[in-house]
Amino acid sequence: MSADAVTAAVPTAGRATPASLLAGPPSVITAGIDLLADALRAQAVTVTTVDFRPPVDDPAGTAAALATVLADPRREAANATAVGRMLAVRAHLVDVLPASEALGMRPGEFYHAGPPITWDRASGPLRGALIGAMLFEGLASTADEAEAKLAAGEGISFSPCHEHHTVGPMAGLVSPSMWMYKLQDSATGAVSYCSLNEGLGKVLRYGAYSDEVIERLRWMSAVLGPALQKAVRLMVAAGEPMDITALVGQMVQMGDEGHNRNRAGSAMFLRDISPWLIRAELPAKDTADVFAFIGGNEHFFLNLVMPCGKLMGDAAANVPGSTVVTALCRNGTDFGIRVSGTGDQWFTGPAGIPVGLFLAGCTQDDAHPDIGDSAITETVGIGGMSMATAPAIVRFVGGAVPDALAVTRRMYEITLAENPAFAIPILEFRGAPTGIDVTRVLRTGVLPQINTGMAGNVEGRGLHAEGMVTIPKV
Amino acid sequence: MSADAVTAAVPTAGRATPASLLAGPPSVITAGIDLLADALRAQAVTVTTVDFRPPVDDPAGTAAALATVLADPRREAANATAVGRMLAVRAHLVDVLPASEALGMRPGEFYHAGPPITWDRASGPLRGALIGAMLFEGLASTADEAEAKLAAGEGISFSPCHEHHTVGPMAGLVSPSMWMYKLQDSATGAVSYCSLNEGLGKVLRYGAYSDEVIERLRWMSAVLGPALQKAVRLMVAAGEPMDITALVGQMVQMGDEGHNRNRAGSAMFLRDISPWLIRAELPAKDTADVFAFIGGNEHFFLNLVMPCGKLMGDAAANVPGSTVVTALCRNGTDFGIRVSGTGDQWFTGPAGIPVGLFLAGCTQDDAHPDIGDSAITETVGIGGMSMATAPAIVRFVGGAVPDALAVTRRMYEITLAENPAFAIPILEFRGAPTGIDVTRVLRTGVLPQINTGMAGNVEGRGLHAEGMVTIPKV
Repeated sequence: MSADAVTAAVPTAGRATPASLLAGPPSVITAGIDLLADALRAQAVTVTTVDFRPPVDDPAGTAAALATVLADPRREAANATAVGRMLAVRAHLVDVLPASEALGMRPGEFYHAGPPITWDRASGPLRGALIGAMLFEGLASTADEAEAKLAAGEGISFSPCHEHHTVGPMAGLVSPSMWMYKLQDSATGAVSYCSLNEGLGKVLRYGAYSDEVIERLRWMSAVLGPALQKAVRLMVAAGEPMDITALVGQMVQMGDEGHNRNRAGSAMFLRDISPWLIRAELPAKDTADVFAFIGGNEHFFLNLVMPCGKLMGDAAANVPGSTVVTALCRNGTDFGIRVSGTGDQWFTGPAGIPVGLFLAGCTQDDAHPDIGDSAITETVGIGGMSMATAPAIVRFVGGAVPDALAVTRRMYEITLAENPAFAIPILEFRGAPTGIDVTRVLRTGVLPQINTGMAGNVEGRGLHAEGMVTIPKV
Repeated sequence: MSADAVTAAVPTAGRATPASLLAGPPSVITAGIDLLADALRAQAVTVTTVDFRPPVDDPAGTAAALATVLADPRREAANATAVGRMLAVRAHLVDVLPASEALGMRPGEFYHAGPPITWDRASGPLRGALIGAMLFEGLASTADEAEAKLAAGEGISFSPCHEHHTVGPMAGLVSPSMWMYKLQDSATGAVSYCSLNEGLGKVLRYGAYSDEVIERLRWMSAVLGPALQKAVRLMVAAGEPMDITALVGQMVQMGDEGHNRNRAGSAMFLRDISPWLIRAELPAKDTADVFAFIGGNEHFFLNLVMPCGKLMGDAAANVPGSTVVTALCRNGTDFGIRVSGTGDQWFTGPAGIPVGLFLAGCTQDDAHPDIGDSAITETVGIGGMSMATAPAIVRFVGGAVPDALAVTRRMYEITLAENPAFAIPILEFRGAPTGIDVTRVLRTGVLPQINTGMAGNVEGRGLHAEGMVTIPKV
């Protein structure tokens, strides 16, 4: 992490432009996780292991900037406040509704994952998703037409999900006609949003925009969204809104880290919403289709874990002097972070290319730089931070259980709290390592471990793999 | 375990009568699990730790009998065959139907958990369940009338579930009008049965027989059973019968040991059956009630894990010379086991009183000696044998994660195989310790660890607690 990021953690610092931070090619970094790196190396995967110590040659002045931040007398109390607010969030699912209604989005308006980006710098998956969203919204009838309009920019605007209390997996594309979950923190009334999960394979969030993708989106808006709305509104009316925080706590005890593994969470979501879906009295075929769609997608619950994380990240934001990370996200070009004390300001670096296991016909060369807001899970202590609870993920890429434990144990070095609501059985029910402190990251050189899906590097292709990445050490 | 049991493991041995084995009061034994015993002791729970070494004073001739069995030249190959058959079972849910139809049961006929028992020796919970079943079947209109008829015995017969390819949790009562799951091993065509789970609290299987208990049983026969039948038959007709073995394998990776914890299994069962329940096109209220009933009971799947275990236990049975345990069960009075080489023969000892955590208003003094066929889970390597995967259970009674790991590690000492289909993440995906060998139990003194529900010691009361027990060392 450069001095720009560190300086920026001091409220008075200037805005760092993405361009100024884009130096050198993206690289895969497994900082501090030697066992994992060894396991990957044994499979002939190229791995870069970074040096943890502060650079002796420090032209950017990282050490001096760090010293300034560490000397800030507000820091300790501010961090306690920020993390305390993060841990206090109790997220409930209170509604499901179209983005136009939930967020006031108008035709031509799009949200995307990661920090701000322009069309000319947009990655393939993000471009593909934008093209798909244009087709879905009826703003273009062919991909070429969509692309031309997006490049021209007239009547088109896009901005980060994160700037609208929203998060989205992978490309994270949100357009006005898409339906959104609305979560609310019962104590503060704060809200967050996320779109509905499309399933795997050819899906918009991986940049695919073929007819089947658009057709599925239409079904989701015509059937799935309204069905969930009815069920969720019945639950709310009965005084039983779904407690997402409680479900996340349970899934973490059931081998899900809530990012790359959501099997238990998805099954429990279906279990809890099913009586209400029945009471919604939809046409029989729609009900059957909705059950089959939710039940057939083990990542369905990811899109509820993410806005739960967003509520937690937002709760910790804007505490003057706090060095707690409140957002980690990627747009396929840049990796962006936000820090509590610097509010809405983005600090960016190049997005890394994840290392992972590839689907048939794909190789590491097909992998695209990291993309998605799903690292909001790591921002709040789960996902890769809680890898210990989901050793199946590490095994998936050739690692072993001790590697998974080592990852999470190291994450405690860079976090400020343990979340008792997200307890990890294999670590004797120790709470998830929560509240990443940028000063600890800089002092230790340990980077947050992020699990991720991996998009292909050509627009329109879709999911290639699942893998792991750390944030860029810019 | 006494010499009777050992001798009996040799096919030529005579039948051991329960009475001859009933010596001394039941006691709580935590053989080989010192950490756990320490944890319990710290909470002022009375614990007896047994000596593992073969008794120096050996009036029953255990050592000599063991030597005879160990010298049997058939033993090694026979055990390999028995365990191989146990591991090869692939259980599918192929039907749901009334016991009268599935098993040809007639009015006045009852099955129960555990080894054979007579009314005069029957425990409180078993008597309560028999009374309830009489009321449910319309064979009596008051509890007093039912009790008198059961004591008189005219037109009444009861026999162990285990003798009818059936298993039942706690009292394990099966009467002709109850609906049963039918599981089948796809390779051999072998079948097994289990009743539907009633939920917690006042339920027949814990010996309760109040109006609410009988009413629930009537609803289960009128609505739940037929609904599941329609859904399961649709699945079978579509060529997609539910693969119970696969679900058990998944739940074991999700913190369920399949006996005292079935949260993931129950959620996945509902997930997988839900589209078919919808397609069954029941009246809307029934569908809603069925979803709420299944979704509201985290032990619903126990009654599918158990017949899966029964198929595995039965598959290993009747291999001449094999010392593999094929059934562990209790009727609230006696603990019974069956061993492969001795086929249908029962060996019994006194049922132990489990140690556990009690519901409000109940204490250890209210606990009843162990009851139920649910130890079929331990017979096939899960339940207490796989405690490592469900440390939440040990924690429930004040133990810690290392205690749970120690339990399962020790179980490998008395088992012949590791089941790759039931892999335990926390043990680096080692397979569940499977195939209890009675000669190893005797040589090591390590007793199988059994998790259990705990009934009250007064008939008609219902669930008091959940706890742990080992088999009696008679």
